[in-house]
Amino acid sequence: MPFPNADSLWADVLAVRQQQPLVHNITNFVVMNYNANALLALGAAPVMAHAREEVRDMAGIAQALVLNIGTLSPEWIEAMVMALQTARGRGIPVVLDPVGAGATPYRNRAVAELLAAGSPTVLRGNASEILSVAGVEAATRGVDSAAASDDAVQTARTLAARLGAVVCVSGATDHILAPDGRHVRLSNGHVWMTRVTGVGCSATALIGAFCAVQPDAFHATIAAMAYLGVVGEVAAAQVQAQGRGVGQLQIALLDGLQLLDAETFHARLRLQTDD
Amino acid sequence: MPFPNADSLWADVLAVRQQQPLVHNITNFVVMNYNANALLALGAAPVMAHAREEVRDMAGIAQALVLNIGTLSPEWIEAMVMALQTARGRGIPVVLDPVGAGATPYRNRAVAELLAAGSPTVLRGNASEILSVAGVEAATRGVDSAAASDDAVQTARTLAARLGAVVCVSGATDHILAPDGRHVRLSNGHVWMTRVTGVGCSATALIGAFCAVQPDAFHATIAAMAYLGVVGEVAAAQVQAQGRGVGQLQIALLDGLQLLDAETFHARLRLQTDD
Amino acid sequence: MPFPNADSLWADVLAVRQQQPLVHNITNFVVMNYNANALLALGAAPVMAHAREEVRDMAGIAQALVLNIGTLSPEWIEAMVMALQTARGRGIPVVLDPVGAGATPYRNRAVAELLAAGSPTVLRGNASEILSVAGVEAATRGVDSAAASDDAVQTARTLAARLGAVVCVSGATDHILAPDGRHVRLSNGHVWMTRVTGVGCSATALIGAFCAVQPDAFHATIAAMAYLGVVGEVAAAQVQAQGRGVGQLQIALLDGLQLLDAETFHARLRLQTDD
Repeated sequence: MPFPNADSLWADVLAVRQQQPLVHNITNFVVMNYNANALLALGAAPVMAHAREEVRDMAGIAQALVLNIGTLSPEWIEAMVMALQTARGRGIPVVLDPVGAGATPYRNRAVAELLAAGSPTVLRGNASEILSVAGVEAATRGVDSAAASDDAVQTARTLAARLGAVVCVSGATDHILAPDGRHVRLSNGHVWMTRVTGVGCSATALIGAFCAVQPDAFHATIAAMAYLGVVGEVAAAQVQAQGRGVGQLQIALLDGLQLLDAETFHARLRLQTDD
Repeated sequence: MPFPNADSLWADVLAVRQQQPLVHNITNFVVMNYNANALLALGAAPVMAHAREEVRDMAGIAQALVLNIGTLSPEWIEAMVMALQTARGRGIPVVLDPVGAGATPYRNRAVAELLAAGSPTVLRGNASEILSVAGVEAATRGVDSAAASDDAVQTARTLAARLGAVVCVSGATDHILAPDGRHVRLSNGHVWMTRVTGVGCSATALIGAFCAVQPDAFHATIAAMAYLGVVGEVAAAQVQAQGRGVGQLQIALLDGLQLLDAETFHARLRLQTDD
Repeated sequence: MPFPNADSLWADVLAVRQQQPLVHNITNFVVMNYNANALLALGAAPVMAHAREEVRDMAGIAQALVLNIGTLSPEWIEAMVMALQTARGRGIPVVLDPVGAGATPYRNRAVAELLAAGSPTVLRGNASEILSVAGVEAATRGVDSAAASDDAVQTARTLAARLGAVVCVSGATDHILAPDGRHVRLSNGHVWMTRVTGVGCSATALIGAFCAVQPDAFHATIAAMAYLGVVGEVAAAQVQAQGRGVGQLQIALLDGLQLLDAETFHARLRLQTDD
């Protein structure tokens, strides 16, 4: 497996732009539009479909499946289980975003039901969500984390091994942990990214696109998080220099997902390998 | 209760920014993303959740509940009733936006069902919607008002007393009426704000955030409407000076919700007390 | 019927701006917000409503009905059929966007069910979708076309005659075909428009607004597609000149829908009549 560095991560970016993978999303109402635009800006081909009558067919033609429980209802969980089974049967990557896990018992049951149907390839959440999925009593506050990402690392490592999945704990520092114990930290990004709804969910969607072109899900997850992190900090700097705010950041993020160049990516990447 | 003036209203803005109240929204599909971004830009913490399986739990941890009937279906009304009951049981504020009331019998029945389950703390709508909620035969046109806000004031005053709720009739002039007869007019804003979908619904969501930090719902409603009105007229002026249009206004509004300063707010506020 | 030229098409634009037709949309979750904003920017009055309990009433007060199958479920198809029947009973125009037709059997069945309930006034899709609706085995890829619009012209011509509907095949060149054999090509637009989600769906929504003010649906469809095409290429040129990307394009498109002037429209229109 390639050792993740700026060159190998950038190669994944180019692969997404060139291969334009079809990413099937079953995601929440709040972020559907923004996630579709994020995938399009990146160069991927999003499709959103949730009907139980067609999710098997859609997952059957996609190169990756992204599941996000941000706005649930029973029919949607059922559709997610069906799509997850199809995706696993075909061997395409599945990325799960347990939005708000820990906030309500219903979300916890939904996560349990999904995990019972099959492990995802990658699980991405904030610290509270990852702790909750691991069964650790965690403080949460709606869909925001009440814990720092650093606090969840040991739990995430164990969870990765148990699920056989890459686990990404996002926060001021992103931690990405592989089932085999590999661990990297990313320190890119900007705090304003938490004030645009759907940026975390977009990270999950982008991981789906990267996993579609990079068979090492650990590498793909790092590439997606690193790319979004660099895009975000460059965009935030531009927006602040113009005296603009988080509205403009939302748009500048999409511009950056399309236009970021290799030179900026290399100059800005803050990747630390931890083993 | 504080007499509403620029200083006391600005204090509410600072309180929202500092306390970051968790606002539970059960709202329509069209504006979910924009309302979440408006609340985040303001400094509040939005959560959107509509499943009957979890709305009681979510309303149980929120500091305010916002109900918006813009895109209804029976399950959503049921969920709204459940969340409303939980919120009232806990004594947290409930803000109701009767989008399109009067446009179809179904919307009228939905409003009646919600009001039967419990009065909101604040009711915000355009003139047609408020007239319709009051049972006055009103001309409506889809979700747009066919009446001027000034025409609905007397009806709104009676409605406020009957419901024991603050009633806000928004329009070129916003009228805010308390159950005890207090009444203020706000003349901020810009007509282009009606050409960005979800700005009215965002006003309702912002009222929720302000009510979470200001126990006098009359004062909180004035603060939210005044803040959005000033943000909107400043944003519209900037956008027009750049030769841009209502697309850019949508973004500039979010920037302004984050960045408006006390000086501009004081200089621009057009508040008239009516008693 | 007016021969479509820049003057007659621009007259339709002015008619929409002046009459502000109420357009009832039953559309997908991904694009609801963007389509509502596109209609508002153009000067029309959008309403989104999907509940079976109210679609007949909403279609009963609208000037046009737009149906879009982008994110389906059984209740939505049922609601679309009800609204379609009401619209046809009242003689208002119906525009159908068969998003992703051909991608899954469920979508094909949905289209068949809608067409069985009544022909639309206008059918707009990309080449794959139109070929699929016509029953031609077509390559599709999620919701993106795998065929060029030129390849679908003959099939679209036959389909227009069979349905008694205007058929619009959009792509690098847009083909618009009337049931009586009239055919025009439009060569405006910019490839980046395909990287903003909902632009195609917005085209469909705009056609609804134009059909509400122009009884010749062929003329109205050309006007809508020409207007959006010119707006899009002007916006793309501006965005690229600023070093911005598809995020900014999304916003610039809305600005342009509001602000495009007659002079630019006349100078840029690339319309070719084919008979």
